[in-house]
Amino acid sequence: MLENLKSEVCQANLDLVQEGLVIQTWGNASGIDRRRRLVVIKPSGVAYDGMKPAHMVVVSLETGQVVEGDLKPSSDLPTHLVLYRAFQSIGGVAHTHSLYATAWAQANKDLPSYGTSQADYWYGDVPCTRPLTPKEIKTDYEANTGHVIVERFRKLDPMRHPGVLVASHGPFVWGEDCREAVHNAVTLEFVARLASETLRLNPRVRPLPPALLDKHFLRKHGPKAYYGQR
Amino acid sequence: MLENLKSEVCQANLDLVQEGLVIQTWGNASGIDRRRRLVVIKPSGVAYDGMKPAHMVVVSLETGQVVEGDLKPSSDLPTHLVLYRAFQSIGGVAHTHSLYATAWAQANKDLPSYGTSQADYWYGDVPCTRPLTPKEIKTDYEANTGHVIVERFRKLDPMRHPGVLVASHGPFVWGEDCREAVHNAVTLEFVARLASETLRLNPRVRPLPPALLDKHFLRKHGPKAYYGQR
Amino acid sequence: MLENLKSEVCQANLDLVQEGLVIQTWGNASGIDRRRRLVVIKPSGVAYDGMKPAHMVVVSLETGQVVEGDLKPSSDLPTHLVLYRAFQSIGGVAHTHSLYATAWAQANKDLPSYGTSQADYWYGDVPCTRPLTPKEIKTDYEANTGHVIVERFRKLDPMRHPGVLVASHGPFVWGEDCREAVHNAVTLEFVARLASETLRLNPRVRPLPPALLDKHFLRKHGPKAYYGQR
Amino acid sequence: MLENLKSEVCQANLDLVQEGLVIQTWGNASGIDRRRRLVVIKPSGVAYDGMKPAHMVVVSLETGQVVEGDLKPSSDLPTHLVLYRAFQSIGGVAHTHSLYATAWAQANKDLPSYGTSQADYWYGDVPCTRPLTPKEIKTDYEANTGHVIVERFRKLDPMRHPGVLVASHGPFVWGEDCREAVHNAVTLEFVARLASETLRLNPRVRPLPPALLDKHFLRKHGPKAYYGQR
Repeated sequence: MLENLKSEVCQANLDLVQEGLVIQTWGNASGIDRRRRLVVIKPSGVAYDGMKPAHMVVVSLETGQVVEGDLKPSSDLPTHLVLYRAFQSIGGVAHTHSLYATAWAQANKDLPSYGTSQADYWYGDVPCTRPLTPKEIKTDYEANTGHVIVERFRKLDPMRHPGVLVASHGPFVWGEDCREAVHNAVTLEFVARLASETLRLNPRVRPLPPALLDKHFLRKHGPKAYYGQR
Repeated sequence: MLENLKSEVCQANLDLVQEGLVIQTWGNASGIDRRRRLVVIKPSGVAYDGMKPAHMVVVSLETGQVVEGDLKPSSDLPTHLVLYRAFQSIGGVAHTHSLYATAWAQANKDLPSYGTSQADYWYGDVPCTRPLTPKEIKTDYEANTGHVIVERFRKLDPMRHPGVLVASHGPFVWGEDCREAVHNAVTLEFVARLASETLRLNPRVRPLPPALLDKHFLRKHGPKAYYGQR
Repeated sequence: MLENLKSEVCQANLDLVQEGLVIQTWGNASGIDRRRRLVVIKPSGVAYDGMKPAHMVVVSLETGQVVEGDLKPSSDLPTHLVLYRAFQSIGGVAHTHSLYATAWAQANKDLPSYGTSQADYWYGDVPCTRPLTPKEIKTDYEANTGHVIVERFRKLDPMRHPGVLVASHGPFVWGEDCREAVHNAVTLEFVARLASETLRLNPRVRPLPPALLDKHFLRKHGPKAYYGQR
Repeated sequence: MLENLKSEVCQANLDLVQEGLVIQTWGNASGIDRRRRLVVIKPSGVAYDGMKPAHMVVVSLETGQVVEGDLKPSSDLPTHLVLYRAFQSIGGVAHTHSLYATAWAQANKDLPSYGTSQADYWYGDVPCTRPLTPKEIKTDYEANTGHVIVERFRKLDPMRHPGVLVASHGPFVWGEDCREAVHNAVTLEFVARLASETLRLNPRVRPLPPALLDKHFLRKHGPKAYYGQR
């Protein structure tokens, strides 16, 4: 079942490695079939070498129970499920420990938008969650990771901020599908590094002017977009 | 028409990716046929994978209207046109969001010349533009990006400073043709990183001595050049 | 003799280069056959190009004498032997001068755990040894390097801290076998860089909360582990 | 003539690019035949792509006149010649603008030895020259670059400090032959980066203890060396 989605999700996981965002087994990507309410995700702790679509695990959006697949799903599955349930518009999720985005997460800081590179993708900061409480860590840790993300987005549109930094952990990024989630994860890593290098040159740098943020985000996104071939 | 120029411009765009200066679709290179007053540029938002000369767009230098090509030209086309009109000696333009040059642009700082590597290509600083005003951003943004560059070059010779940093955005670089524009973009990225690393080691470092700047720039450029095989 | 172990050790040495942890001849990996009390290690100062299992040197765990092999063993052999004798649970050791781990060693600082990436592998800091005394350097330097490591682990479990920074020198990393030692060396280099980038963003950052350290280390290690496919 | 030496020098120049020490045409390597008093060097400003031994230029050690070759020698030839005349024991020279070594040169700072990686190759600091005077720059610039290097080595043994940083310019590195010069240039770039990263972590770090410097340098160099297979 869901052969196309399994292929896409498998490829997205391999692309995370290819793009240099994932070493060891530190990452996972998933995709959802909204109509069937099923999520496809990478298995837990499996080497990328030789990973095939048939290794992907199909689980229920509601229960997280495995519907198809011989392997245990990624231990981060409950985080993905919380995101899919809360953010109706997203179709794919990618989690990495990519270097610079993770450094911002470990610094427990929102990633400010210092230029047009970030403004083309995020309508402002890449938000950072609050730390989880010891209680949230001890019980249902992975689901609670999802809940602090959703809490952080109370006043934010997930399609205008297609990713988040989880404090002391790393980024979760999403998009219309898992391919776009990986694309946005690549962008996040680049702009995280760019912001680090900018801050080093000018520790008092301010976020880019609001008019420039509007121009760049809205020329690529929404009804007045004119970037690209559409 | 302009088959040679389309091939050169296509190759220049692919080289920007190959050289690590462009990820995603964040860059564009163009070239001009001065005699016919036509500019060839990359299409907007198109993937580099499989990009061919036939995808290049031919536009009028005066009007920016498409003369040949099935795709929309790069959204940055108006910036390129302003540069070609103002700087008569340039034959190619490359725009990237390369990491270190963009960090300097986001820091809103001229890039000082700390050594002979930069002095071989720029006769002093790589200048940074002023920020655009909200009004300049809202109307004719891309053309106004060109205008603030030209304004910054009021007292500078574009052949002695073959590139600029646009504040909060990134570099535009040029040369005799688009191949040289890419070559200079590679140099700019290297010297931007070099200056960042130098500043970290010695925050009070001063630009290189004027005699050394003269020696290195003028042994490669102008009538007394003796570097290379000419 | 020990053909399998010689193949594994040879491959581990080549992997150190492949993973970017070793340049020139600055690294060595070894493995042990606990039953026969024999250690297999890379020869000293030999180029990696063309290195084969037959070049590996077999030595006695007790005496360090060569039991098989035409080449001199790595000059760091005495360090490896001290580690194998003191840490009964380890089966492989890797020594590198990988960039960021070595920078922390040269800074003479324990590497704090700022996030879950490190907590997945080290149960807290990556410890740094004290400097060797001039006397320890002049006589039996390489064995004494092992002794200061063992001294630093008086209150630490080597399986919960699978590596160390030797002051002014670089990391020694270990694991169940030499393959895992290399895997842990890759992780150490990544988390060392991650910590450096984190500190730059937030010089007052604190180690990750104890509950999060417990959660991540213990979901991968020990009887209650649920990460992976076991 | 000198076909072997031309092959070695050509390969050394290509290796500088392969090792990531040279971009554009910013580097040159040479070798000397001491018996015939002839130096072989890369031609000036020529692309590395397609470079062949036959392109190498043979010049007289005394006069610098071209003895064989159709191309102009590297513009840095006079620097190489001064070094070969002053340092009788060297057989090859490599000049690069490699990133981190050049950053130290631009910072006008001696590169201190913070650990054993550098101590394995340099018996202490990598020295930095004084700046050239305007007069030294205007007349015989390239030869004067050699003279300030030699001046800096008045009390240093070039075989114990196989390279130097020229202020505001970049490194010159040497060795027994051009292959070893390239090898040492690779080491210099690594230890320059390592020192930068170390300083960032511990701005008050001190050079490594003298006993450790002695141990590492002398176990690889001189009559009591025991590193490697000799």
